[in-house]
Order: sequence, then structure tokens, then C-alpha cells
Amino acid sequence: MKKVFASIITIGDELLIGQVIDTNSAWIAKELNKIGISVKHRVAVGDVWEDIWYSLDEESKHADIILLTGGLGPTADDITKPLLCEYFGGRMVIHQPTLDFVTNLFEHVFQRPMIERNKKQAEVPDTCTVLLNEKGTAPGMLFEKEGKIYISMPGVPGEMKWITENHVIPIIKHKFQLGFIEHRTLLTAGIGESFLAEKIKDFEARIPANIKLAYLPNYGMVRLRLTGYSEELNELNNTLNQQFEQLKQKVNDFLVTDKDLPLEEVVGNLLKEKNQTIATAESCTGGYIAHLLTSIPGSSAYFNGSVVSYSNKIKEEILHVNPLTIKQFGAVSKETVTEMAGNILELMKTDYAIAVSGIMGPDGGSQEKPTGLVWIAVASKSKINVKHFNFRYDRSRNIQATATNALNLIRQLIVDNS
Amino acid sequence: MKKVFASIITIGDELLIGQVIDTNSAWIAKELNKIGISVKHRVAVGDVWEDIWYSLDEESKHADIILLTGGLGPTADDITKPLLCEYFGGRMVIHQPTLDFVTNLFEHVFQRPMIERNKKQAEVPDTCTVLLNEKGTAPGMLFEKEGKIYISMPGVPGEMKWITENHVIPIIKHKFQLGFIEHRTLLTAGIGESFLAEKIKDFEARIPANIKLAYLPNYGMVRLRLTGYSEELNELNNTLNQQFEQLKQKVNDFLVTDKDLPLEEVVGNLLKEKNQTIATAESCTGGYIAHLLTSIPGSSAYFNGSVVSYSNKIKEEILHVNPLTIKQFGAVSKETVTEMAGNILELMKTDYAIAVSGIMGPDGGSQEKPTGLVWIAVASKSKINVKHFNFRYDRSRNIQATATNALNLIRQLIVDNS
Repeated sequence: MKKVFASIITIGDELLIGQVIDTNSAWIAKELNKIGISVKHRVAVGDVWEDIWYSLDEESKHADIILLTGGLGPTADDITKPLLCEYFGGRMVIHQPTLDFVTNLFEHVFQRPMIERNKKQAEVPDTCTVLLNEKGTAPGMLFEKEGKIYISMPGVPGEMKWITENHVIPIIKHKFQLGFIEHRTLLTAGIGESFLAEKIKDFEARIPANIKLAYLPNYGMVRLRLTGYSEELNELNNTLNQQFEQLKQKVNDFLVTDKDLPLEEVVGNLLKEKNQTIATAESCTGGYIAHLLTSIPGSSAYFNGSVVSYSNKIKEEILHVNPLTIKQFGAVSKETVTEMAGNILELMKTDYAIAVSGIMGPDGGSQEKPTGLVWIAVASKSKINVKHFNFRYDRSRNIQATATNALNLIRQLIVDNS
Repeated sequence: MKKVFASIITIGDELLIGQVIDTNSAWIAKELNKIGISVKHRVAVGDVWEDIWYSLDEESKHADIILLTGGLGPTADDITKPLLCEYFGGRMVIHQPTLDFVTNLFEHVFQRPMIERNKKQAEVPDTCTVLLNEKGTAPGMLFEKEGKIYISMPGVPGEMKWITENHVIPIIKHKFQLGFIEHRTLLTAGIGESFLAEKIKDFEARIPANIKLAYLPNYGMVRLRLTGYSEELNELNNTLNQQFEQLKQKVNDFLVTDKDLPLEEVVGNLLKEKNQTIATAESCTGGYIAHLLTSIPGSSAYFNGSVVSYSNKIKEEILHVNPLTIKQFGAVSKETVTEMAGNILELMKTDYAIAVSGIMGPDGGSQEKPTGLVWIAVASKSKINVKHFNFRYDRSRNIQATATNALNLIRQLIVDNS
């Protein structure tokens, strides 16, 4: 059995001028990995005929499966479809099921008249197999050439995901004999990447050849990932589990989770297990911690709510922080976040609370309280822990770093409480 | 003068298994564009010697400038540095200024002992020009070969950005004679991509050859972008401005902004101009709208705060929604969001307010109120507008779609009020 490789080509000028961040190919890569396919390359090209053509030639050299997203819209800058028609030969024909579907969509869902341009969406090269798109107007298309398969999908994430799940994955599983790729991931806190590497040096030197170790540092936390490939799933899982156990023991003092979960889900799971609740009082993060917690399905079971108190008035009037505290110590202080944490816990009647106040920049810093200074308080009914940080990132990453560290502090408090 | 092209190679297995979304290359592309450089390709490769090597060969064929990020860490999976040393010839030597800088960082900033592994960070191939990294331990490196330049930077965004701004951009401007790339972007709401294309068909047919039009649809809004390249900046700006004026007139009825700003900044600017304030009461978006508004520097001038009322108790006790309203109509209803909007406006003493309540999925939907149903209310002191939507995305995109539409509704209300 031969290892199967895929390449992902994303098409669109917006990817090359920095107007849009490509989230599609990360998602596709994850789905392909699950069924044992390694992604060799991810390439972004503009809406330029010869560049797309060249990428098709080039990726055909390296990969068995070439996935394309983007450039299938109804407007003139979208050239993927005519290009594929010429690349694989053939002529454009109406695909009746797609036309019926699109017509129905306009009549019953969009409830607006369909124009000629929309009908064009139902035209496809007669050399392709159509992958009907139930989430939009542009169908997916599958071509085969010299043992390789090429699949073109729209760039709209919801449509791309639906076509991948409902057509692409089943087709690939049917056409290729696939091995297995498995990952084990753990998350550490409180130890730098270099020190971690020293700590597991001996382990790293003895990892079997079919397993790879990777380090992913992020805001003072480091994720470690073991990835293995094999044709034998049981054997692979046994080896990986064994290795993972050893790794876990080595980093046990710093272990946050041995699952590949975002920190907000780790916190959520701890709360769900104990049937407990949480609330946040956020100044500098402006609701971002609440957003992270509620991005997890089912979070309403443990997340009661949040007060985003951007102005001092709101800190005083809704969070009932003593005006004298703010006057004496400032909004960004140990004293203010301590009151915020205790008060939001009472106000929202939760078991745990997070409170943050800081200066995220670029403006608002001073000699005494520079940009990047953040106070974080985490509270249970019996205890409040307070800590300050000095982040040196830009505004957006200061907000992310604050949220990450706040979630880690509340996680520690929940774990210590049990 | 020859047009200058760049390629970006991002290195790291995490990019090919979908564990990390690549935000670096979008940022780099934007910065390069500003100085007249077009990005030809963006390629992501794994931590694999021959793949990185091949990409260097390959991108050298297409680009004058090849930028690499990632793979410079202190751990064994980071192979970029030895690879570059072999690719460009030479041997590894200690770069004393980097060693001094790293030593100082450990002594005074990290305040922990430095280990051998950290010293290694100061080793570089003697064939490169070192780009000192004041934001971390891995320096940037510049190589030249056959008239092309190659720059390797760490993958940590803050470090990569600092090196780009302080070394890469000045060096490129010095080494190449550059033309100009200019963009004009506008945002429309309330018209589909196909209809928009019909509306500007004649305009599109007559655009000058050095200008390109692109459509970027997102949650019911469509961004239109004109991009031009020329060696003459004044001429380019004149042509672009002229074309952009024509385009604006064609879509005037649907125009949200004629600047390339996120919607939250458009709303923020309107409020700042009028010296007015806003607050949000969020159920289903869980603080995401507050997060968007506060992601803009200086937002404390107009954003007072938010109550994230995930549980009905919080809706009643903090937002003072009448319990009978929730009992009779449900939390996801016109009546509830109307009260939420009016009450948060009073509570936070603002000029405007946004309130949202909906079912984001995957669970919580019913026959009568399916997943994706959202009620949005926007309020001024004298008026409340309420609207409902039926989104058909996944949880994460339902949240984004809700936020986008809520921001557009409040924008309309602010504009109508003036």
C-alpha cells in the first residue's frame, strides 16, 4: 500500500493581497488527515489563468489528490470553471439537477428572481462528475486524469465543508486504499519551549521512526503533538499510546490536558463534570473570554453570562466596584479586578468567575502602567487568586494572551478545588 | 522597470494537518503590496527537508523575493536553519550581537537561566546577513543568490512582524526599483453578488487593462475591490479614483463604506464623529459583538460595555427583561430582544444599543424555532428596529453572521438618525 498525498490549491487574489485569511485549507487538511491522507502542499494562487494552470501541473507531480477551492462564483473574476474545462478537455453543458436545485433555491429560499448569470452556475464541463452543492449555487466538480483525481469546490466555507463531508471524503475513501494517520496532543503551561525540549530530550531521541514529535508554542503555553502513520491501525494506536504515556509522565508537572482541545473547552469540560457554572467580568478583553467560552457547543450548561465593563461607570454601577477603589488604585489594579471577580460571582450566582483589566494598546499606556499590563483575578466561592502580566504584543495578541492566561488560571483554581 | 514578485513559503507540519491557521502570510502580503510588490504564490510545506528544499528551488523560478517563515525554534523539529546553511553554502557561526541580545533577554526579561539550546539560537550560516530580532531569540536571515533575495523569519507573528517592518521592508525598498500597487475597496449590503454583477456589467466591461475588479461576498454583504498597478503613482491614483467614483455611483443605493474597513470600525467611526456611545446585550453571540467593537484601537471613546446574558436569569435580573415576556414569547423572540435593547440602552446610558438572541446550534433548535433563527434589535433613544434572520451555517459562522448583520442594522440606524 502506497501512502496517499493530497495538495490543496486555493484560488483568489484576496489571498495574495492579504485581504482574506485562508481558513479553508486548514479545515480540509484536518478532514483528510482523519482518513489517512497527508497534505503535501498548500498553495495559494491569484485569479490568473496561467498561474492556476501551472499549479495544476505542478501539484500533479507531488500528489494523488488535488483539491481546489475558489473562483467558481458568477462574476467575471471567477475563472476556475472555464480553465478546468480547457485543462481536462470537454465542453460546457447544463447540469440539469444543479439547475433544478438553483431554480428552487431562488424561488423558495432567496425568494427573488433568477437571472441569466445564476443559470450559468449550473453549467459544467462534460468531462467532470458533478458534486451537487446543497448549500449554494456553485456545484463541486470531480475530474480524473492519469490515476489522479482533481476536485474543485467553491471557496465559501459552508459550501466547501458540505461538499467535502458529503462527496469528497466518501469518494476518496472509495477510490484509494488508505493507511492511518493518528495524532496525540497534549498542552503544557508554565514551562518554556527550550526547557521542555531539555526535559524530554531522551524521550525524543528514542521515538520510533514512524512517529514525529512537534512543538507548538503559544502565549506561554506549549502544545506537544505526536503524529504517526501506519497501515495497521491497532499497531499504530498501541505504539502511539505507549509513547504518549511516556511523554505525559515526563511533562506531568506542567500538563494542562492530554486532549487536542482548546483551553476554553478544557475549562468547560471541568465545569460540566462538576455541574458548576462560570461568569466573566471583562474590561480590556471586551467580551473575548465570554466569546471563547460560548464558542463551544453546549456552553449554556455552565456559562451564565458576562459583564463587559469597558467604562469605569459600568464597573461601578453594574459591577458595584467601589468608586474609591478605582480612584485610589486605578481601573487596572489588583484591587479593582479583585472586586470585579468577587462581585460578578455574586451577581451572576456562579461557582467561578474571571475578571480582567489591562491596557491593550496601542494607546492608554503610561510610565507606571505600560501597554501590555494586565491584572487577572479568578474567583471561587472561597478563594480569589490574582496575578499580573506584562505582555509585549500588539492589541489583538495582547487580548488573546490575556484570555489564554485567564482561562489557564481559572482552570488551575477549578482543579485545585477538587 | 520590471514588476517585482514575491513568494511566501510557510514552514511547519501544523499548517498541513490543520492544527494552526496561517495568518502570517496574509499580513506579509499586505505589507508587500503597500510597497508595490505582488505576491505570486503562497506555499505551505511541512517540516520535511526535501519539501522545503524543493519549494526554494520552485519559488526561485517565479519570484524575485522569497520569504520564509517558521522552523527556526530551538527544538529538533525545526530544520530551516541547517537547511538554509546547506542550500546557500557556508558553515554555522555564532552571531555575537544576537548572543548578547539573547543573553540579556534571559537575564533581565525572562529572568531564568539560559541553557545551551538557547545559545544555539545565536548560530547562523556565515553566508547570511543577520536581521536582528528584538522581539525574540531567533534572528532573521537574508541570503542572496543569482539576483534574488531570500529572507527567513521566525513563525511567531509578533517576531515576524517586527523583523518585516524593521528590516525586510527597508531592505527591499533599497534593493529593488518598485512600481505601485493601489487598492480601492467598498462594501455593499442588501444586494446579492449576481445582481451586483449585473448592475455594474457595463462598468466592468470598460475597466482599463491595468485595473482589476474583484468580488468578495460575506454573510449577505459584498466587498468590491479595484486593484491597479503602475510605475506612475499619480497617474495610477487618478485613474483609480476616477474608476472608483463611477463604481460608487453604480452601487450607491447599497453602499456601506467606500473604505477598506471592517464593519465594526465603520460603526465606531460614525459614533466617534458624533461623539455618541453604544452598548450591547448579547445572548447567542456570547460577547462576540462586544469583542469586535473593542478590537478597534480607541473604542473606549464610544463603547461603554455589554451584558452577555446567556441564561434567562441574567436576562431578567441584570437586563430587567420582564419574566412574563420570556415565559410568553420565549428568550428567542421579537419581544425579548426589544426589551433587551431598550434596557441595555438605559442601563449603560448610551445613545445606541444592540441586542441579539438566537439559536446558534448544533443543539437547541425546535420545529417552531430552528437552529439559525436569530432576533436582532437595534435601538436609539427614540427608535427600536427589530428584524429576524434564519442562518443556515454551523455554530461558529452563525455567530459571525449574527454579529455582521447586527452591526449593519445599527449602522443603518445611526445613519438614518443623522
